[in-house]
Amino acid sequence: MPGEFEYIAWLRAQTPADPRVLIGPGDDCAALAPPARALLVTTDMLMDGTDFVLAEVGPRRVGRKAMAANLSDIAAMAGTPTAAVVSVALPRGGRELAQELYHGLRDVADAVGVALVGGDTNSWDGKLVISVTALGEAGPRGPVRRNGAKPGDFLFVTGPLGGSILGHHLDFTPRVREALALHAAVELRAMCDISDGLTADLNHICEESKCGAVLVAEAIPVSDAARELSRTSGKTALDHALGDGEDFELVFAVSPADGTKLLAAPPVPGLVKIGECVREGLWLETNGARQKLEPRGWVHPV
Amino acid sequence: MPGEFEYIAWLRAQTPADPRVLIGPGDDCAALAPPARALLVTTDMLMDGTDFVLAEVGPRRVGRKAMAANLSDIAAMAGTPTAAVVSVALPRGGRELAQELYHGLRDVADAVGVALVGGDTNSWDGKLVISVTALGEAGPRGPVRRNGAKPGDFLFVTGPLGGSILGHHLDFTPRVREALALHAAVELRAMCDISDGLTADLNHICEESKCGAVLVAEAIPVSDAARELSRTSGKTALDHALGDGEDFELVFAVSPADGTKLLAAPPVPGLVKIGECVREGLWLETNGARQKLEPRGWVHPV
Repeated sequence: MPGEFEYIAWLRAQTPADPRVLIGPGDDCAALAPPARALLVTTDMLMDGTDFVLAEVGPRRVGRKAMAANLSDIAAMAGTPTAAVVSVALPRGGRELAQELYHGLRDVADAVGVALVGGDTNSWDGKLVISVTALGEAGPRGPVRRNGAKPGDFLFVTGPLGGSILGHHLDFTPRVREALALHAAVELRAMCDISDGLTADLNHICEESKCGAVLVAEAIPVSDAARELSRTSGKTALDHALGDGEDFELVFAVSPADGTKLLAAPPVPGLVKIGECVREGLWLETNGARQKLEPRGWVHPV
Repeated sequence: MPGEFEYIAWLRAQTPADPRVLIGPGDDCAALAPPARALLVTTDMLMDGTDFVLAEVGPRRVGRKAMAANLSDIAAMAGTPTAAVVSVALPRGGRELAQELYHGLRDVADAVGVALVGGDTNSWDGKLVISVTALGEAGPRGPVRRNGAKPGDFLFVTGPLGGSILGHHLDFTPRVREALALHAAVELRAMCDISDGLTADLNHICEESKCGAVLVAEAIPVSDAARELSRTSGKTALDHALGDGEDFELVFAVSPADGTKLLAAPPVPGLVKIGECVREGLWLETNGARQKLEPRGWVHPV
């Protein structure tokens, strides 16, 4: 693939036919069959040295993370991801790097039936930058937003939290299937994916829903990585579970009746009730005593 | 906008209501009303030092170029652009830079009714990188591709060519309205925007259409910038018009009957017939004599 045109020829040869893709890579735009319901769109950019260290993790895991982080946002609205485009700034001489990156993107996209329909391949003197835009379709109940939680709602997460920096932030599976199965079973009133950290992302739900939340310390599912990290970090494993970013599990609110239903017959494995919504404030309850919880976790730089 | 959440609040306040935008910036995804016809999607990434020099041109013109280059791809398929998302890697301390960049994006998006529905704002130690993904809707005749030209077809461009490096590559207007007006008037059989250079992009049409083309040297519209550049570059102004990239005019093929119609009553200003399609080869005709034309212009680095 000495020129972009050759790269596109290669990309085309690698791309399986998908009836939703009317025009694939190679023209000025890709063309997709119009979705039946609301079109979801999200974009995420990852930079070497910030979101990963290329020299340590290799391009394939970078490709996986870039695709998975975007699909996680589609999952957060209980949508079905359909297609993605990718733009990259490659360090010079990055031909093999580009192919490995592409294979990583495909590893994750193929697992949930997402078509890679186009992109923009550049090279430069800087470090690797990759930007993915994912498209999806809302479910029959519409997109799940952050603003529908109510006091009394049960709060759940889809899996263990904390310490993702040890590897999970590169190798996670976006909770696409889980979100669809959950939304088929009950009405998800508010949801987001845990990218900034549980407390920070839950705070987004509370701000948008104009309510508060109490987390039960004993109920928070703490990952093995959080425990491992706590041995050297000077923080507790619970601190890591509450504050670390990039777990990419889902946190969501459902009515008490639906919550009871989920507890009785969980439609997906790994589901844990971590607390409830209240009128105001963000609280951590330990042995029955409540203390105020400051939203922590990743603070966006700009 | 110390945190992304504050930036999003600012972005929301700046974003006019658009009935097609069901959910705007701030949730995990934006949600758009599903298009009635095929959904077009394109992405383009620009990097400081490669596609622009930030210190010389400033962030507002960078924002304009980033949006315009993407809308030009939608125009190249005679689509109506509807929405865009933007991801950026800002040099540290880039708060004002981000706002100026955003204003530049909006300058171009607003002019053609494109909603800016979301993005991902990052900062890092590297140079400015901006990636835009634009969405659009195909026209009633479907997306115009590169593969429909036939021998005998007339070839047109929408405006003067060459020397865009002197400024036009930053300040061009994407030919969105022109493409729609042309496709309403006649059947555009093949089209692309001139980003790599006239000869290179025409060659894409010829390869995809499995035909050749003859360009008439005297007919090529040479820009003032091409003439200015030729005074110092050691190339002729025509060389610049044929080879320079980033003019972002459209080059297209129509049947001889439709071509005659366009010449008699041009639906848009600036339209020039530059040659015709033939069975094979790429040729330049000067004073009636044909010489072989090598595809030149911007060669993609990977």
